[in-house]
Amino acid sequence: MSSLTLYTPAGVLAQAQPLKRAAKRLGALGFEVSIDEAALAKHQRFGGDDETRLAALHRIAKAKPDVALASRGGYGLTRLLDGIDWKLMLKSVERGTRWVGQSDLSSLQLGLLAHAKSGHSPVSWAGPLACDDFGRSEEEGGVDEVTRDCFVEAMSGALEAIGFRTEAGFEELEARGTLWGGNLCVLTSLLGTPHFPQIKGGILFLEDVNEHPYRVERMLLQLQQAGVLGAQKAVLLGDFGGWRKSPLDRGYTLKSAIEAVRSRTKTPILTGLPFGHVRTKVCLPIGATAELYVQGRNAIVGWAAEHHHDPLREHGHEHGHGH
Amino acid sequence: MSSLTLYTPAGVLAQAQPLKRAAKRLGALGFEVSIDEAALAKHQRFGGDDETRLAALHRIAKAKPDVALASRGGYGLTRLLDGIDWKLMLKSVERGTRWVGQSDLSSLQLGLLAHAKSGHSPVSWAGPLACDDFGRSEEEGGVDEVTRDCFVEAMSGALEAIGFRTEAGFEELEARGTLWGGNLCVLTSLLGTPHFPQIKGGILFLEDVNEHPYRVERMLLQLQQAGVLGAQKAVLLGDFGGWRKSPLDRGYTLKSAIEAVRSRTKTPILTGLPFGHVRTKVCLPIGATAELYVQGRNAIVGWAAEHHHDPLREHGHEHGHGH
Repeated sequence: MSSLTLYTPAGVLAQAQPLKRAAKRLGALGFEVSIDEAALAKHQRFGGDDETRLAALHRIAKAKPDVALASRGGYGLTRLLDGIDWKLMLKSVERGTRWVGQSDLSSLQLGLLAHAKSGHSPVSWAGPLACDDFGRSEEEGGVDEVTRDCFVEAMSGALEAIGFRTEAGFEELEARGTLWGGNLCVLTSLLGTPHFPQIKGGILFLEDVNEHPYRVERMLLQLQQAGVLGAQKAVLLGDFGGWRKSPLDRGYTLKSAIEAVRSRTKTPILTGLPFGHVRTKVCLPIGATAELYVQGRNAIVGWAAEHHHDPLREHGHEHGHGH
Repeated sequence: MSSLTLYTPAGVLAQAQPLKRAAKRLGALGFEVSIDEAALAKHQRFGGDDETRLAALHRIAKAKPDVALASRGGYGLTRLLDGIDWKLMLKSVERGTRWVGQSDLSSLQLGLLAHAKSGHSPVSWAGPLACDDFGRSEEEGGVDEVTRDCFVEAMSGALEAIGFRTEAGFEELEARGTLWGGNLCVLTSLLGTPHFPQIKGGILFLEDVNEHPYRVERMLLQLQQAGVLGAQKAVLLGDFGGWRKSPLDRGYTLKSAIEAVRSRTKTPILTGLPFGHVRTKVCLPIGATAELYVQGRNAIVGWAAEHHHDPLREHGHEHGHGH
C-alpha cells in the first residue's frame, strides 16, 4: 500500500471538509493516507505562516511518504523558494517520494529541477490537487474518473504515456527530451531567479486559468525572447480558460495569441493537452525523458515507467492512459 | 514652440474623440501637435498590426519631434521589442526626442536603457498618456492640473524634482543613482530577455493597476530573487489600485505584500510616489541620475534639468514640481 501525505504549501483551506473528503476517497483508492499536522493552519490567505509551511515541506521530505499531494494551490510557494532546503527535498525524490500537484506547486517542481546536480533530473508529478480533484462533494461534481485513474496509475509507477487530440499541422512530428512545465504564470515568475531550470531540448507543457489571452501571449513572448521556447523541441499547451472577453478585443482571441507566438519561433506549439485547471487532467512526470509522437491529429507523450521501489508496481498496468 | 507627435504603439483607440481632444488641449498648452498617420489604425485589440505600429515608431524616431507622446497603453509593445531598430530609437533620444508615457510604454522605455551603449543612459519620460490624461471630456473629469503642469514643465526641460509624502521610517535616507522603472507587470515581463536593463545602484520606481496584492508580491519577489531589488539603492512604489478583495484574503492586503518583500531585502521600499494609473501623476526621467532625500515624511527625488537643445527651455521654471 502506498503511503500518501496531504499538506498545504500555499493557499489556506477555508474549510476542512474538502480535505477530509479527499482523504477518505484516496483511502478508498488504496492509499495509506495521512494528513500533515499543519494542513489546516491559517495565516491570512496562506495555509499557515511562512515558517509553518516551510516546516511542513521539510517534515514531509524527511518522512518520505510514497506520495506528497498538495491540498490546493493558490499563492504561497514563491515566499518559500529561497528558504527551501533543496538538498533535503531532492533526497526525498531520490528516495521515491512523488511530489504531486499543479498551479502554485509548479514553482516547487521547477525548483527541484533547477536545484538538481548537473546531469540529474529529479522527477515530480504535474497532476491533481487533493481538494480540487478529490475533495468535491457529489453535488459539486465529485471525482473525475479519468483524473482519478490516471493519478492512481501514475502513483503506481505504471503510467508510461498519455494521449490527446491536437490540431492538424503536426503530422509525423517526433521529439525526445526532458518533459517539464506547469502553470505559465508561475513558471514565468521564476525567470531570472535561481529557481528557474535551464532545460535545453525539452518538451515544455503549459497551462493557466483566468488569464486574458493578451497576458498569455505576453508570458509566452517573454519565454520566446528569453530563449526558452527556441531551446525546446516542442511546446504543449493545456487548458487556458476562465478569462473574460473585453470590448476592446475586436476579434483577438486565444488563437490570435498562439498564432503570434508561433510566428516568432520555430518550435512546434501544440494545443489540446488535457491538463490545467479543468476537471479532466492527466499526470505528467516533470523531469522525465519523454517522447512525443504525432500521428495525424493524435499526439502521444510517452516515457519509461518508473523503476525505483514501489510496492504497487507489480500490479501496475502495462499501458498508459490515452493509448 | 515644442513639436509633439501623438501615436499609438500598443492598444487600439476605440474612438477618435479622446485623441482629438488631447491634441487640441496640448496645442493650447503651447505644443505644435501632429498626429501620426497610423494613430487611429485598428487591428484586433491593437492600434494597427505589428508592422504598422513598428513603422510608426521608426517614422517618429526619424522625424525627431521634441516630444513623442503615446495615445494610450494597453498591450502591444511586447510584440515589437525584437523588431525595434534600437539604434535609430536611441539616436532620436540623443537628438532630443522625449518618449513619454507609462503602462505598456514601460517596455519601450526600459528597452532603450537595455540597448544603450555601455556607459550611456538614454533618458525617456514616465508620464501621462494622451487619451487617458489629456483626452477626457469635462464630464469625465477633464485634465488634472498637477499632471498637466508637471508634464509641461518636464517637456520644457526645466523640471528638476518631484516631492511626495511617504510613510515614517525613512527619515534622513539619501540615495543617488539611475532613476528607472515603470509598470511592474511590464517590467517583470522583460526579465530574462535582452530588453531588461541591467542597472545597479539605481532608484527603481514601480506602479500597477488591477493586480491583486498577491500578484504584486509575486512580481516583487521575482525581482528580489533575481537580484534586482537588492542591487538598487531604493525602491519607490506608486499607486497599486483597482484590485478586488477575495474572501480568501483573510486580512492579507497590499500592506502585507509590501511587508513580505521588505522582510526579504535590505533595500528601502518607500510608498507614496504620485505615479501610476491615477489622475494625478508626476513625470519622471527614466535613465537620469537622480537623488532621493527623505526629511521626516517628505521625500524628494531630484535630478539635473536637461541641457540639450530645447526652444522652450529659456522660459522654463527654475524649480521643480513638489519643491
